[in-house]
Amino acid sequence: LITIAIIGMGMIGTSLGMALRNADEPGSRLGPLQISGFDRDRSSLNTARGRLAIDRVATSLADAVAGAQIVVLAVPVLAMRELLGELAALLPAGTIVTDVCSTKAQVMGWARELLPTTVDFVGGHPMAGRERSGPDAADPELLREAIYCLTVTPHTRPQAIEAVEAMVEAAGAKPYYIDAEEHDSYVAGVSHLPFLLSAALVDVASQGSAWREMQALAASGFRDVTRLASGSPEMHRDICMTNRAALRHWIARTVSLLDEVGAQLDAEDSAAIEALFRRAYERREEWLAAKPNMRPGEDAFLGGAPEVQRPSLFGFGPRKKK
Amino acid sequence: LITIAIIGMGMIGTSLGMALRNADEPGSRLGPLQISGFDRDRSSLNTARGRLAIDRVATSLADAVAGAQIVVLAVPVLAMRELLGELAALLPAGTIVTDVCSTKAQVMGWARELLPTTVDFVGGHPMAGRERSGPDAADPELLREAIYCLTVTPHTRPQAIEAVEAMVEAAGAKPYYIDAEEHDSYVAGVSHLPFLLSAALVDVASQGSAWREMQALAASGFRDVTRLASGSPEMHRDICMTNRAALRHWIARTVSLLDEVGAQLDAEDSAAIEALFRRAYERREEWLAAKPNMRPGEDAFLGGAPEVQRPSLFGFGPRKKK
Repeated sequence: LITIAIIGMGMIGTSLGMALRNADEPGSRLGPLQISGFDRDRSSLNTARGRLAIDRVATSLADAVAGAQIVVLAVPVLAMRELLGELAALLPAGTIVTDVCSTKAQVMGWARELLPTTVDFVGGHPMAGRERSGPDAADPELLREAIYCLTVTPHTRPQAIEAVEAMVEAAGAKPYYIDAEEHDSYVAGVSHLPFLLSAALVDVASQGSAWREMQALAASGFRDVTRLASGSPEMHRDICMTNRAALRHWIARTVSLLDEVGAQLDAEDSAAIEALFRRAYERREEWLAAKPNMRPGEDAFLGGAPEVQRPSLFGFGPRKKK
Repeated sequence: LITIAIIGMGMIGTSLGMALRNADEPGSRLGPLQISGFDRDRSSLNTARGRLAIDRVATSLADAVAGAQIVVLAVPVLAMRELLGELAALLPAGTIVTDVCSTKAQVMGWARELLPTTVDFVGGHPMAGRERSGPDAADPELLREAIYCLTVTPHTRPQAIEAVEAMVEAAGAKPYYIDAEEHDSYVAGVSHLPFLLSAALVDVASQGSAWREMQALAASGFRDVTRLASGSPEMHRDICMTNRAALRHWIARTVSLLDEVGAQLDAEDSAAIEALFRRAYERREEWLAAKPNMRPGEDAFLGGAPEVQRPSLFGFGPRKKK
C-alpha cells in the first residue's frame, strides 16, 4: 500500500487526489493507494474530503507526511520555499517529494537548497488548468491525457523518478521530461504570456472612458481571448515573479511585433499585415492538426526520458494482471 | 411580400438568410419574406441555396436586386466600394441598402459618396462571429440574441431605419444604434485588438527556435487566447486597414501597458503586477455578470435609438396577430 500525501487542497491538488482515487488499480504500477491530505484552510480540506479527493484528513503537516512515500506539494509557488523549509525536518530518508508549480527552475533551486540529500525531489507541472481555483473547481478529468512536465537532476534517484512517473500515469496524464530552464522559457511563451495578454486586453479595454458602451459590444471573441484573465491574480503574480527573465523575453518580442504592426498601419502596408495574419493562421492550424495525432507527450517521453531502472524502490515493476 | 436581396453568400450572409427564412412570420413586423441571393462565386451561391438560406438564386447583381425593397451587402469591407459603385445605377428610388461590415465610418462615407440620394443606406454590424468563413460555416442561430449595431445619419429616412430594424429583429438579433465613429473605436478595442493580440501571440510563440518543443506544452489556455487567429487573414487585413486610427490607439495603449509590466518585472514590483491582474480579474467578472442581466442591447436601444415614425413605408405597423 503506497501512501501519497497531498499538501494543498486547491484546484490542482484536489483534482489530482480525485484522479488518483479513481485510478484503475490493477492497471497502475503503483498498486493500491492511500491518500492523505492537508491544507491550512480547514474548509478547503473538508471540501476535498467531501469530494473524495483524499482518504484521510491530516491534522497537521507532520501528520500528513507521516508514513507517506510520496509527498505532493500543491501550493502556490511563492509558498513553496517556506513549505520546503518546514518539511526538511519532517521527512524520513527515501521520501519522494514532487510539486505542481507552474515554474520549475526556482522551485528546483529551493528544493536543492532546503531538502536533505536523503530526500528526492522531482519537479512536476501538469499542463492543464482552469481559470477557477479552489477545491470546488477541481475536476477528476482535468489531468486526463494532459502533458505532465517532470524535471529531474543528474542526482535524482531513478526510483524516485519512476515513482512520480507512475503516479502521473495513474492520474491519467502523460509524463514529459524536460530541463527546468527550458520548461520555464517554453511555458512563459505558451502559458504565462497568453495570461498576460489576456489580462492586458481586459485592462486596456476597461480603463478607457467608453468602457460602459464597449461592454455591450464585446462578444464571444473578447470572452475567449480574455478567459485566462479570470484566473487567480495571486497565483499569476507568483508565476510571473518566479519566471521574470523568460517572461521579459516574450514581452519584448510581443511589444516589438505590435510596434511593427503599428508602423505597417501608418504606412498602409496591407500586404505586411496580411502576411502576419496568414502566418499566425497557418501556424495555429498546424498546431491544432499536429496536437492530437503526434501525441506529443508520449513522443517526447520515448525520446527524452532518462533511463529508469526497474524494479524500483517500492518493488513495482512492469504492469501485472492481478 | 417583402423581397430582401443578400449580396455575398459568406458565413454572415448565409447565416442571415437562414435566420430570416426561419423567422416566425406572424411575429415579424416585416411579414412574409422572399429572399434572393447572389455571389460571384457560383459554388458559394449553390451551397447557400442548398442550406435554405435563400429562396431564389440570382444570376447577376442586377437580377438579385430587381424588385428588392431591402438589399443586404454581405461582402468583405474592401469589396464594398466597388459594389456600391455598381449598385448605384441598379437601385430604384426608395431602395433600402444595409451592410454587415466590421467597420462603419469608411463604409458610411462610401455609401454617401456613391449611392443616389433617393436610396437610403443604414450601416449594420452584427456582433457575432465565427473564426471559420464561407457558407458551410453559416449557422441559423448565429445572430440569436446578438447585438446588431446600426449606424444612421440625420438624413436617413425613418422608414429605412424601421425596415432594417425589423429585419434585424426578424433574424433574432438586437438592434443597437450607435454613431459610426464611436462604433469603430469601440469595436477596435473589443474585437479588432483581441484579434490582433491573438495573432501576435501565435506569431511570437511560433517564430522562436523552440516552437517544436513549445507546441507540446501549449494547452487549453493557448488554444483559447489564440482562437481568433484562425479567422480569415484577408477579412481581418481589410478590417484593420479600414479602421487604422482606432486600432493604432489601442495598440499604443497595449504596448504602453506591456512596457510597464516589463519595468515592474525588472523592479520585482510584485504588488503592481498583482494590482493589474486583480483589476483585470474584477473588470472581467463584472462584464460577465452584467452581460446576461442587463440585456445591454435592449437597454441601449431604449435609451439611444432615434425616433421612428410608424406606420412605415411598407405599411408594417405594430405587431398584429394573424
